[in-house]
Amino acid sequence: MVGMARWEPNASQRLANAALELFVERGYENTTVVDIAQRAGLAKSTFFRHFQDKRGVLFGEESMTEQLVTAIAAAPDDATPLEAVAHGLDALGASLFTDERRALVARRRAVIDAHPDLMERETLKGASLTASIARALAERGVAGPVAEAAAQLGALVLKWTYERWTGSGNEDGFGDLARQAVSDVQAAVLEV
Amino acid sequence: MVGMARWEPNASQRLANAALELFVERGYENTTVVDIAQRAGLAKSTFFRHFQDKRGVLFGEESMTEQLVTAIAAAPDDATPLEAVAHGLDALGASLFTDERRALVARRRAVIDAHPDLMERETLKGASLTASIARALAERGVAGPVAEAAAQLGALVLKWTYERWTGSGNEDGFGDLARQAVSDVQAAVLEV
Repeated sequence: MVGMARWEPNASQRLANAALELFVERGYENTTVVDIAQRAGLAKSTFFRHFQDKRGVLFGEESMTEQLVTAIAAAPDDATPLEAVAHGLDALGASLFTDERRALVARRRAVIDAHPDLMERETLKGASLTASIARALAERGVAGPVAEAAAQLGALVLKWTYERWTGSGNEDGFGDLARQAVSDVQAAVLEV
Repeated sequence: MVGMARWEPNASQRLANAALELFVERGYENTTVVDIAQRAGLAKSTFFRHFQDKRGVLFGEESMTEQLVTAIAAAPDDATPLEAVAHGLDALGASLFTDERRALVARRRAVIDAHPDLMERETLKGASLTASIARALAERGVAGPVAEAAAQLGALVLKWTYERWTGSGNEDGFGDLARQAVSDVQAAVLEV
């Protein structure tokens, strides 16, 4: 039918993969949206149905905050604030940070680490994520300062886990690494 | 006696106060060592007996790491890793971060926050402090990953406490604020 967009299976994933390949191969600044679409075997217009711009490929994952917040809300009633956050991290390990997506996420991290302006945006995204965690905990009835502390601990655990998981040579799953990091934090507070 | 340096009481403190006053009044980059010595009523040579350069006034406090590490080593045997760090923070509250020094430390913070290169140095200093805390805990027999986690929690608590303590309108002591932050972290891990 004339004028109707053709539906491409996994277009978003294919475009993200193509973009990250190109960012690594020829540099982020030397890659255009046309290059990305071409590499993915898709039209430029298809790119713009999925992403606002080239940067959007790196920062489009709005669903991360959503998934984390939903899983924190669904954590068992008798979970401590940190355990509720750990429940959220488990959810990320089962959706965004799967073994299949590790190479892609590691490539994304390498591109961001090489560009101060992208790192700045990543830091801002992290701060907004931490604030969302604190709000999700407050909605579970956790007192303000404790929710704030737990959110910061959660952000710390997420950062460690993300760095280890995307680190070269690692083969452990995101969920296992997150559980290990949470248990190190618990030991730091409890162990004599 | 010819050639013998005159001993000036509290020269280091007077120079630090003068420097921070000038940094705030006319800007860090518009202040010279000669200005600082003059404002303090001391000779330029006296300045260089206490500090390497203008930057040294802001980053000369090597004693902070030393005091923290010493107090961590001296914490009771039955202290958890986080409590041992809290013991170190108490020591800072009794020596460097006293009520008398709050205005000076707050001014130092304002100067650093206004200069990206100074902030970068402050961040590096923080990373080195965190590593020192982890080593001090490992020497107490805390396992590597737990010592690392406790050091990062300690760095987080130190950062919050420092920001609150130097924040405008605050009148609470550093030690009290640190204890409150530690207890928020404990509640985040323990409270159901």
